[in-house]
Amino acid sequence: MNGRVIPYDIADLTLAEQGRKRIAWAAREMPVLRLLRERFERERPLEGLRIVACVHVTTETANLAYALRAAGATPVICASNPLSTQDDVAAALVADGFHVYARRGEDAETYYRHINWALDHEPHLIIDDGADVVTTVHRDRRDVLQTVIGSTEETTTGVIRLRALARDDLLAFPAIAVNDAMTKHLFDNRYGTGQSTIDAILRATNLLLAGKTVVVAGYGWCGRGIALRARGMGAHVIVTEVDPVRALEAVMDGYRVLPMREAARVGDLFVTATGNLHVIDREHFLVMKNGAIVCNAGHFNVEINLEALAEMAVERIVHRPFVEEYVLPDGRAIVVLAEGRLVNLAVAEGHPASVMDMSFANQALACVYLAQRGRQLPADVYPVPAEIDREIAQLKLESMGIAIDRLTPEQEAYLVSWQHGT
Amino acid sequence: MNGRVIPYDIADLTLAEQGRKRIAWAAREMPVLRLLRERFERERPLEGLRIVACVHVTTETANLAYALRAAGATPVICASNPLSTQDDVAAALVADGFHVYARRGEDAETYYRHINWALDHEPHLIIDDGADVVTTVHRDRRDVLQTVIGSTEETTTGVIRLRALARDDLLAFPAIAVNDAMTKHLFDNRYGTGQSTIDAILRATNLLLAGKTVVVAGYGWCGRGIALRARGMGAHVIVTEVDPVRALEAVMDGYRVLPMREAARVGDLFVTATGNLHVIDREHFLVMKNGAIVCNAGHFNVEINLEALAEMAVERIVHRPFVEEYVLPDGRAIVVLAEGRLVNLAVAEGHPASVMDMSFANQALACVYLAQRGRQLPADVYPVPAEIDREIAQLKLESMGIAIDRLTPEQEAYLVSWQHGT
Amino acid sequence: MNGRVIPYDIADLTLAEQGRKRIAWAAREMPVLRLLRERFERERPLEGLRIVACVHVTTETANLAYALRAAGATPVICASNPLSTQDDVAAALVADGFHVYARRGEDAETYYRHINWALDHEPHLIIDDGADVVTTVHRDRRDVLQTVIGSTEETTTGVIRLRALARDDLLAFPAIAVNDAMTKHLFDNRYGTGQSTIDAILRATNLLLAGKTVVVAGYGWCGRGIALRARGMGAHVIVTEVDPVRALEAVMDGYRVLPMREAARVGDLFVTATGNLHVIDREHFLVMKNGAIVCNAGHFNVEINLEALAEMAVERIVHRPFVEEYVLPDGRAIVVLAEGRLVNLAVAEGHPASVMDMSFANQALACVYLAQRGRQLPADVYPVPAEIDREIAQLKLESMGIAIDRLTPEQEAYLVSWQHGT
Amino acid sequence: MNGRVIPYDIADLTLAEQGRKRIAWAAREMPVLRLLRERFERERPLEGLRIVACVHVTTETANLAYALRAAGATPVICASNPLSTQDDVAAALVADGFHVYARRGEDAETYYRHINWALDHEPHLIIDDGADVVTTVHRDRRDVLQTVIGSTEETTTGVIRLRALARDDLLAFPAIAVNDAMTKHLFDNRYGTGQSTIDAILRATNLLLAGKTVVVAGYGWCGRGIALRARGMGAHVIVTEVDPVRALEAVMDGYRVLPMREAARVGDLFVTATGNLHVIDREHFLVMKNGAIVCNAGHFNVEINLEALAEMAVERIVHRPFVEEYVLPDGRAIVVLAEGRLVNLAVAEGHPASVMDMSFANQALACVYLAQRGRQLPADVYPVPAEIDREIAQLKLESMGIAIDRLTPEQEAYLVSWQHGT
Repeated sequence: MNGRVIPYDIADLTLAEQGRKRIAWAAREMPVLRLLRERFERERPLEGLRIVACVHVTTETANLAYALRAAGATPVICASNPLSTQDDVAAALVADGFHVYARRGEDAETYYRHINWALDHEPHLIIDDGADVVTTVHRDRRDVLQTVIGSTEETTTGVIRLRALARDDLLAFPAIAVNDAMTKHLFDNRYGTGQSTIDAILRATNLLLAGKTVVVAGYGWCGRGIALRARGMGAHVIVTEVDPVRALEAVMDGYRVLPMREAARVGDLFVTATGNLHVIDREHFLVMKNGAIVCNAGHFNVEINLEALAEMAVERIVHRPFVEEYVLPDGRAIVVLAEGRLVNLAVAEGHPASVMDMSFANQALACVYLAQRGRQLPADVYPVPAEIDREIAQLKLESMGIAIDRLTPEQEAYLVSWQHGT
Repeated sequence: MNGRVIPYDIADLTLAEQGRKRIAWAAREMPVLRLLRERFERERPLEGLRIVACVHVTTETANLAYALRAAGATPVICASNPLSTQDDVAAALVADGFHVYARRGEDAETYYRHINWALDHEPHLIIDDGADVVTTVHRDRRDVLQTVIGSTEETTTGVIRLRALARDDLLAFPAIAVNDAMTKHLFDNRYGTGQSTIDAILRATNLLLAGKTVVVAGYGWCGRGIALRARGMGAHVIVTEVDPVRALEAVMDGYRVLPMREAARVGDLFVTATGNLHVIDREHFLVMKNGAIVCNAGHFNVEINLEALAEMAVERIVHRPFVEEYVLPDGRAIVVLAEGRLVNLAVAEGHPASVMDMSFANQALACVYLAQRGRQLPADVYPVPAEIDREIAQLKLESMGIAIDRLTPEQEAYLVSWQHGT
Repeated sequence: MNGRVIPYDIADLTLAEQGRKRIAWAAREMPVLRLLRERFERERPLEGLRIVACVHVTTETANLAYALRAAGATPVICASNPLSTQDDVAAALVADGFHVYARRGEDAETYYRHINWALDHEPHLIIDDGADVVTTVHRDRRDVLQTVIGSTEETTTGVIRLRALARDDLLAFPAIAVNDAMTKHLFDNRYGTGQSTIDAILRATNLLLAGKTVVVAGYGWCGRGIALRARGMGAHVIVTEVDPVRALEAVMDGYRVLPMREAARVGDLFVTATGNLHVIDREHFLVMKNGAIVCNAGHFNVEINLEALAEMAVERIVHRPFVEEYVLPDGRAIVVLAEGRLVNLAVAEGHPASVMDMSFANQALACVYLAQRGRQLPADVYPVPAEIDREIAQLKLESMGIAIDRLTPEQEAYLVSWQHGT
Repeated sequence: MNGRVIPYDIADLTLAEQGRKRIAWAAREMPVLRLLRERFERERPLEGLRIVACVHVTTETANLAYALRAAGATPVICASNPLSTQDDVAAALVADGFHVYARRGEDAETYYRHINWALDHEPHLIIDDGADVVTTVHRDRRDVLQTVIGSTEETTTGVIRLRALARDDLLAFPAIAVNDAMTKHLFDNRYGTGQSTIDAILRATNLLLAGKTVVVAGYGWCGRGIALRARGMGAHVIVTEVDPVRALEAVMDGYRVLPMREAARVGDLFVTATGNLHVIDREHFLVMKNGAIVCNAGHFNVEINLEALAEMAVERIVHRPFVEEYVLPDGRAIVVLAEGRLVNLAVAEGHPASVMDMSFANQALACVYLAQRGRQLPADVYPVPAEIDREIAQLKLESMGIAIDRLTPEQEAYLVSWQHGT
């Protein structure tokens, strides 16, 4: 690392004070990370390491940054999504001495410039969210491979990309699939995305969900969370899927399951959460009801084919912030929220802090794990060790004042034995 | 009415364009009112009548104002709650020629001055929301009694006050309890307040509801809606009640029922919806958990005893808009949302338009009813006629594309007969 | 009353011991009735009165009979439904000295003969369930009018028939609509019928409800309970209605609402709860899926047009008890449960005891009320007095160990006042 | 195999006709197995193989037996649980030429004698349910190891025992963990056990679940299903767990989580589903409410410490079939259902056919897999191949008339690519 690095690039440093207050508010809901931070201050397990964290720049990731610094690391932060950056948080972090490269609403060119500026710090560890940094490193910035020990990955989408890299023998360092930790994906995607997607839709539209037909595309953890919360708000929920086992689960959970072609005709609101592209496509816009609303809760803004919709439209009207209406030649209007980007981050505040608490505790502990053992690991995609999972869950329960049972010695013996019969 | 009237008093006329767009957006979700408006334009059933509408000045009431004007009336609008006024809507209405007296955040003195300025128009009809206008008329402005034909009342609280007036033989004109219409209270309080209260809590706090213990005070229609939606978001819900029948319903609906004294010890979030005062009082603050959040979904800001809390507190910190922390001498913090005012109106956008659609269709048709028959009615509190209810429900279903069964002649005959046996 | 009365007519007296045990089991879940019985033993409020109770002869009504006898009355029991009689209970009651006329599966002729034998006792009070006794009295047995003080009615259907009688000025004595008590219809129909209908369907068919499309005809209290529980078991629920307000509530509660003609095509299981006739008719059988199952949870077995189905069928096969398959000419099979009779009584055990506890506490207290004031009341249909409702709810809560809040003097004063403002 | 085998041992051959009807009824809900059976008749993939199937002898396993025979095998059937045998089904199978060793209520000695008689057939394949046959083979009947190709295992408990055997290098042949197939454990345990446990509790007790506090011990797939359905019936559900991740999921799903010691004080009904022993133990009985009901939904009857309860009790009363009350010295009564055995099998009819359909399709296809490749597989525990899972789910959806989306070539390309970015 040399002197040429850009120290930071953010929107407005005067927002720092507001950002600081909001970061403190989020900290209240992040007891696990607070506990780790206290331990890190004593143990300094990341002493001297530079970490590029490509994350949604929010109050919650700010708390991760403080924890990493408490562990002795120098975090360098860039945005993982142009629309999710909270400019006041970015300001607060810069005011507190962090390197931050993130401006809400930045264009694609700036987005990749920011990633490159972050990589100029020659990181030892990479915290990634969608694998854009890792992909950039492998494609364009192989110069930093000499310092990188390994990376962690936050999202399903990113893990898929990492696995593709590993399968093609292209992955150059070990990567921890933080997304696959139980205390991450079981909670973050289901409870976090579930609630925050509903929150975002309400903020954008103030629509009454009760009595509406909501079509959820994809019945993975995110889709399950969204379907469950939409039903919890009184909506009639339809699920679309490509996987027969998941589709059958959706049926058994009491949802209607239809192909998108049929669902498109009856939905009032559509939410995509598949990790795939064009799950809502031209053929679906052609049959949607007048006034149908579409939005995306998947990582990338490719799930809704907005290019096709834009070509079809004769007029586009912005009604409220994040609410754009595409008027079709036959007079029908299709309403798109947040330009098809991750709606919970673009319109609401992303996952609630108490969910991020566990995800980021995983990130922090995965970084420590890589710092300690990463140099010995062959380049591949690794799960988060199970003991990290249990530790985080136990800390979380304790922070909620909840005690659980422990196995008695008699019960432990029973579980390991095979000699008991009917 | 003479020339001395103040034409309007609002915050910022330049917001009119934004307000207009948002009013149009809301109109999409108000198909019943749109249909009535079209009929009113033909029939002009309120020709020449002045109507003082003391309402939450929002995009939805704006649509009511347009419908009333289409019917031939001159609506005069004042705010029914100092915190709920949407200044851009007020601006749009003034720009369109309405008399509006409403500024967001106005103090109590301004609030009553606005009511008085509205009454200076010497209305024929009063649309009230909490009975503040009717109370003011009876106490201070008996001069307008010569023009007033009657009033309509939107809220449970207001109806209680009107009934008290009628019981004491003080009511000077007929009042229609719009709140009691099935298409109002069955939908507005349950589905509207239910969703918008959750919406407001999320906007104010970004709290993860899943896994939280939410205490709902009161199991009337509002409380039921809030409890149902809180559970729908994954919360563990406790209900408090004073009525044994309602308490038993809450139990049977699967909620825990506790006295507030016990609920206070375990709740993470408290929502009051009782219509009564001090349901959360000093004794409850004394035992709440550190960080407990309290808010109010009832009409008046008396349900939480904030005076007591302020006296107990050694410090007050505003964390985010609408989020104020009261620090107690023992270090515990109690967080109050929106100063204890109606949280869904103060923090979110009030009821979604599609709920207000039915409430305001009731208001509009109740005004027509009073215009046609009000002068013949003795001063008393009256229900909305049942045929109005059925008409509104039918229009709403049609607007959603939903058909229902009709009784066959054979079935109608069966229902009226008593001669069938086992 | 003379010596000519038949003392009893039941199936098998040797079942008495089994019946006694089951009655004792039910008593555990009937704490309100137990409390009343203890009070009745001291106060003897029905001393010397003969009461014809036309009820489902079950363990729960047996407990009512004991309570009435404890109050000093002589209960005379006949069945209100030929399929619901539990022969062991009838035996236990006879063994304990009661007059009982009920045999499971009795034909229509026997059914009415039993009613007449019961009436031979010249009752002072009638407890009715569907108004068959009251109808018989008015049509065929006007001789008993000289002793009858009044009657109570358990069901919605019966109340409709009584109101029809009253409207035509034919009702000869006062009748208490026990069905309309809040502690009856809010609990009995919703929670009792809801659970026991599901219970009956499972016992009859062992069908997996998860993933099935269940069509509920009627969204009154019974229909709501059934829809809620079917959804609670994982079914996808469709509601049919003729009332637009109820239909709209069903939509807002998240159900699909369709006309029966469309629902018939997609349902796997149909449950009628409308109180009307032929809600499932020939036209619906014509389009149902092969293997569709139909059953009835309404009072009378007229809701499904079984005559039409029998005419259409080329073969009928009984698969399991209560499960009859009608094979249509095109090879499709329609499965009918319990011959279209009240499925929860015919197949399962009727309402659980803890629901009946409140209904029958209402019956007992309504009898006391009639004994005390019935002779002064004009012939009409009356509600259960509100204080009875509150008393029963309070007793029930106490029996569950649940305490609730009480209004403070300050709160009571607030509620009656109209002088508080914003 | 020689002539000394006992051909069958069942309770009553005259029940065959009734059994045959019920087997046919179950077949209607088993479309996947029906399809496989048709294919097997053409392909005969198990020609000449003897299969010992130790299963719950029910209408559903009867259908599995027919499918296996259609494939060319000779199934030999013994009971996997003394209380679950349906004697009419056993009779129908014998009447149709199968070897069956099963009598409802047989004692432990008979149970193992039946297993041994079945093993006398010298099977090539073993279908096991709890690993009792495999354990017996390894311990006492090593003589049959010469013919056995491999086994399949239906339950979680059995898989745990097999893994223990494999870990100790004692397993003598390959075993397929059918329980771990997604189309088995995701459906069978969650939806099947969930519903049938509720069904059994209602049949045994006729208890109103609404308003009751239900304690579910264990939040694995079975526990989740039971908790979900109990809540769906209106109960207030408390979960106990020893695993912090599962406990946290239960909290986030809106349940209260308590240690059993505390839950024991407040529960009305307890259901164990942990797979462990004595999860309800002496210390819990000591604090339970009078009238508390306990039952078990786990595989073995060890989860409730009935020996301890029997020692504590001063009296035992059987109230209804399967309902036994233990009276404690202080007068409190604890009610035990079905002697602590698997309540859904002992009291109700086990899993509904449509769930078993998928489990047994897995069993049948796992047998075919072992027949084709088992001789080449080292002795170990193997998962069901993923393509079997997808095939079964797809067949099931088709049988329900449900179509789902398919990936477009564009989407397939997207999913495998790692080169797409933000």
